[in-house]
Amino acid sequence: MRIREKGIIIGEMKTGERNLITDVKGVKVGHSTIDNEYCHTGVTAVLPGMDLTEYGPAAACYVLNGYGKTEGTVQIEELGRLETPILLTNTLCVGKCTDALTAYMTEQYQKAGKKLTSISCTVGETNDSRISRITDRPVTQSHVYEAIESASEDFSLGSVGAGRGTVCFGLKGGIGSASRIIRLGRSTYTLGVLVQSNYGAMKDLMVNGTSVGKDIAAKIRTAEKDDKGSIMIITATDLPLTCRQLKRVIKRAAAGIIRCGSHMGHGSGDVMIGFTTANRIPLSSREISSLQLFPEECMDLIFRAMIEATEEAVLDSMYTAEPVRSFDGTLYHSLSEFL
Amino acid sequence: MRIREKGIIIGEMKTGERNLITDVKGVKVGHSTIDNEYCHTGVTAVLPGMDLTEYGPAAACYVLNGYGKTEGTVQIEELGRLETPILLTNTLCVGKCTDALTAYMTEQYQKAGKKLTSISCTVGETNDSRISRITDRPVTQSHVYEAIESASEDFSLGSVGAGRGTVCFGLKGGIGSASRIIRLGRSTYTLGVLVQSNYGAMKDLMVNGTSVGKDIAAKIRTAEKDDKGSIMIITATDLPLTCRQLKRVIKRAAAGIIRCGSHMGHGSGDVMIGFTTANRIPLSSREISSLQLFPEECMDLIFRAMIEATEEAVLDSMYTAEPVRSFDGTLYHSLSEFL
Amino acid sequence: MRIREKGIIIGEMKTGERNLITDVKGVKVGHSTIDNEYCHTGVTAVLPGMDLTEYGPAAACYVLNGYGKTEGTVQIEELGRLETPILLTNTLCVGKCTDALTAYMTEQYQKAGKKLTSISCTVGETNDSRISRITDRPVTQSHVYEAIESASEDFSLGSVGAGRGTVCFGLKGGIGSASRIIRLGRSTYTLGVLVQSNYGAMKDLMVNGTSVGKDIAAKIRTAEKDDKGSIMIITATDLPLTCRQLKRVIKRAAAGIIRCGSHMGHGSGDVMIGFTTANRIPLSSREISSLQLFPEECMDLIFRAMIEATEEAVLDSMYTAEPVRSFDGTLYHSLSEFL
Amino acid sequence: MRIREKGIIIGEMKTGERNLITDVKGVKVGHSTIDNEYCHTGVTAVLPGMDLTEYGPAAACYVLNGYGKTEGTVQIEELGRLETPILLTNTLCVGKCTDALTAYMTEQYQKAGKKLTSISCTVGETNDSRISRITDRPVTQSHVYEAIESASEDFSLGSVGAGRGTVCFGLKGGIGSASRIIRLGRSTYTLGVLVQSNYGAMKDLMVNGTSVGKDIAAKIRTAEKDDKGSIMIITATDLPLTCRQLKRVIKRAAAGIIRCGSHMGHGSGDVMIGFTTANRIPLSSREISSLQLFPEECMDLIFRAMIEATEEAVLDSMYTAEPVRSFDGTLYHSLSEFL
Repeated sequence: MRIREKGIIIGEMKTGERNLITDVKGVKVGHSTIDNEYCHTGVTAVLPGMDLTEYGPAAACYVLNGYGKTEGTVQIEELGRLETPILLTNTLCVGKCTDALTAYMTEQYQKAGKKLTSISCTVGETNDSRISRITDRPVTQSHVYEAIESASEDFSLGSVGAGRGTVCFGLKGGIGSASRIIRLGRSTYTLGVLVQSNYGAMKDLMVNGTSVGKDIAAKIRTAEKDDKGSIMIITATDLPLTCRQLKRVIKRAAAGIIRCGSHMGHGSGDVMIGFTTANRIPLSSREISSLQLFPEECMDLIFRAMIEATEEAVLDSMYTAEPVRSFDGTLYHSLSEFL
Repeated sequence: MRIREKGIIIGEMKTGERNLITDVKGVKVGHSTIDNEYCHTGVTAVLPGMDLTEYGPAAACYVLNGYGKTEGTVQIEELGRLETPILLTNTLCVGKCTDALTAYMTEQYQKAGKKLTSISCTVGETNDSRISRITDRPVTQSHVYEAIESASEDFSLGSVGAGRGTVCFGLKGGIGSASRIIRLGRSTYTLGVLVQSNYGAMKDLMVNGTSVGKDIAAKIRTAEKDDKGSIMIITATDLPLTCRQLKRVIKRAAAGIIRCGSHMGHGSGDVMIGFTTANRIPLSSREISSLQLFPEECMDLIFRAMIEATEEAVLDSMYTAEPVRSFDGTLYHSLSEFL
Repeated sequence: MRIREKGIIIGEMKTGERNLITDVKGVKVGHSTIDNEYCHTGVTAVLPGMDLTEYGPAAACYVLNGYGKTEGTVQIEELGRLETPILLTNTLCVGKCTDALTAYMTEQYQKAGKKLTSISCTVGETNDSRISRITDRPVTQSHVYEAIESASEDFSLGSVGAGRGTVCFGLKGGIGSASRIIRLGRSTYTLGVLVQSNYGAMKDLMVNGTSVGKDIAAKIRTAEKDDKGSIMIITATDLPLTCRQLKRVIKRAAAGIIRCGSHMGHGSGDVMIGFTTANRIPLSSREISSLQLFPEECMDLIFRAMIEATEEAVLDSMYTAEPVRSFDGTLYHSLSEFL
Repeated sequence: MRIREKGIIIGEMKTGERNLITDVKGVKVGHSTIDNEYCHTGVTAVLPGMDLTEYGPAAACYVLNGYGKTEGTVQIEELGRLETPILLTNTLCVGKCTDALTAYMTEQYQKAGKKLTSISCTVGETNDSRISRITDRPVTQSHVYEAIESASEDFSLGSVGAGRGTVCFGLKGGIGSASRIIRLGRSTYTLGVLVQSNYGAMKDLMVNGTSVGKDIAAKIRTAEKDDKGSIMIITATDLPLTCRQLKRVIKRAAAGIIRCGSHMGHGSGDVMIGFTTANRIPLSSREISSLQLFPEECMDLIFRAMIEATEEAVLDSMYTAEPVRSFDGTLYHSLSEFL
């Protein structure tokens, strides 16, 4: 059950059909979940829905707090496009995921009859060491392939994939998603968000404008005090935005996570990555192409969609997350137990 | 009367003695207010409390939304220090204030027996064209000198100086301030904030975690709909922070303005500038000097202070603001009428 | 006489018709020169060649060394467009030029039957205090208007306008310009550069790959030793570039100034601003518009054009500059005396 | 033999004892070279010379051209320090190196009796696909360990380690290094540079101010035309610089690579990383510590050292590189054959 079905309605804008990032046509999400005695972690993949050996979607990244290890930001910043699916995993498996994604893209180019010599992988992370024995680094190439190849428009939420071992506001975090519909003139666009939530101190938690953290903390003696962990926020849209405009949009995710109570802690590496399927950049073209530019004066509605979808995605990641017991025995509860 | 005296207590941290930016020792604030038939605007000056012909306080700036005309960010970013008092004014008077501040600093150098050939002025702005006929550009050199020379530890709040014509969440905005005390070991530090508040859509206004905007909007037929305007957030502290650390701190002001309901609108140029009196950089030294570095792992308390002080400063700017009638006859109410 | 007519040919690419920034169709340049007993300074204006009350050209800025006071970078960075002509002046007249440009734009809006309430002025500077008594700040609104209103496709080079008092590699600097033609498929594009040159230590000067500075220094006893001063580099083009691509292009100006011998001194504030007439952004549109994107894989030729034009513009600024005697009696020679 | 021994003296400043990055006390460099039928690649490690489980050296990175895949920049930018040795490798082995470095650091923490849960690895790369069959990704954890564990003050230059397969100005590139001595008052400091050179078009090559590329190109029919490839520039120093100052310094490496003829090509990802052993940041301290700040007005000598050392390191990487035959049979000559 989603938090919206519980009657908690974040914001005022209309959601997409599934209220998922995959409401953006073509976008798919897949998970690979690792769950053994010591490790509760995994990989989540977001596929932009186009032939990545031909096109890169216009893309942007924004680092709100750089206490993070995301791979791929340097080239996104320079060229304003993505070259691979986006992978999420835990902090110490960024190298493994980057390598496996390199292998995967090499194969994709081979299948397309092209030769890959360079690829900029996009791999984000949060730190799930409270639940998972992180130094085991259990992610393998097959987990990465499973996440990518199982990707579909319908996907699981909560304690799955890269969200298996995350903790959010002292409760179980995970993978959350939401979407919003934006109208301009007669056209309709979709903006979707997917988060890997792993931040916040319990006492600060707010649900739709109401402080609930302190009450929950009173019920759970073992609650953590620090605002640590990080959040990755992936945005997909079919809005006609340039990479500069996308950066403006994804930056507004800050308001979404703050509305849930974040105090932007030192140890919380908060990284946003966004792309649009509306502006596909031909990778090897030698001709002038055309980009669509959204009217800047009408961006406020997109900003609001971004904020609403982020806030809802974070809360839904916690609401849909089943409780998970840490490798050291600590039980991380689900928000759904308290609402 | 301040909003805190009304019983609205933002956050959990202790305030400084005056709950003002001037709780940071040496820091002074002055205003010059312009109030004629068409113009309701002015200048506010923040003085860092040191001989600026000898030293520059370590400083940082952060642009949350660059729809703004702040002068001086380029050099702060490069050299990590301030060279002048910080002036706030309206959008179209940035040139006049920069020029007057250049004149003022030239005189200061002359008085100190030194020759000025270069100076990087720091001048921020918000757009008060809803209340003031902004194209009149009524600010003169004497207003700038008045603001600087009248600066003291006690200063007025609300509809004064650069806050005379601002609008915040559809109500009267203005100059607000607050401070917080931070302890590390046996030492006590102060962080103070001053805002020129001019942003937000009325329906979004939140006061200390409670949505109040829609109720107020129901009472005021003429309420504006858009989140436009901008906010300048000036931070002073005696915490031993480097310019890199200061940037991390002032960036957290975002959480303060968002907690008041901001949706980070397109037209809201949100710029933060901060400095510390603890790290004074000798301007013409040819010897190695020493900077103090705050332990990074203990920054969370400073971040929380930044967020609390910003949220309170915004709300207090509105609460202390007397209502002002615009040059076109519209009355902008005070938040104090509704709490 | 231009340096190219002397037989010094920088690079291998073809120049535009005039070998000036105004080879880009529509672009115009004007000067106002101030020359009295103490002051040798002025204003130079670059007009983008479109109705700035309707459109802003796509634009970018890049700060190579932020020891500078350029006004307007914050908003260019955020919105990727220009709102005014670009003015160049001396360090202490940035405020006066910003204010006069505000007045000028207010009038332009009035003439167009529109109401201006906000404008982001673009004003760059270098420090001409070695030749001009800089604290006099002699620039007035009429100088700014003169520079703008006298702008044309043909304009003077050397010791004029904002270049009247500059010093470059210890010789007389000034305003320089050059252009290059770029072909893609059957289309032809122009990239033009204008510099206000005021940087470099004499011993480091190189002319087209040959060190000449030490020889010249041996002839001039009073030669300065430090690499100080700054350079402003303005780029205009009709190439279909987005603001992201423009930033990549103007950044390459670094290679042009370094090829002349720059060691990127601490005190040299090096700021690049560029715009393209090919991507005009409607300022108040509420509809999706279209931008052209140059094929990224073909950018190298543009980069080379940028580097060649910058190198030539710097050398030509020095070659065309007539000698000027400083307010303190020092004579700054022209490069043309030594080649 | 080094290029300096050949009589080609870059610049005017004094070199350190070995004219290597390891002239900075404590800094060590090691290689692991892979050389089989198809692959000519490897790993190079730069060790900052301190217990990285206790301290991080103050550090900075600067991205001149972001067409690159360097891992670790996000956190260096935020926290201003290094957490690991710096590894260099080829483009498609960044993932493998990141993972192996994660394993290595985990062990180091274990040996020190500490628990690692987070680490920000620093891994740079250039693209050696002209010489090496890059999709083989032959780097393993043992190569990374070999590079780190073999690190010493004396190390090989040229076609070794991460420089085994690189190409520079159409000739064989590789690992180059140089150092310079800087005096301030009675103190003496060292700045050292190490490059992985893999950029430039042959026709553009300049050696110490003289164009030699076109002559060499005339002798080698197969010479490449494009300026592609990338360069990584690692800087170590014992100068008392903050991370802000370090960024200013390493940015000047641009002048060094441009003086060798670079036209800053689209495909050349140019990334600088620097650290100082003089400002060690305690990783888990909860007390205020002290940083040294170099007098800003005296930075020019450091900038010149940076430029000279970079230029010499690039030329020496080519001069010391033995010729290597590509997997497809092309022979890449050494610069030493032509000087």
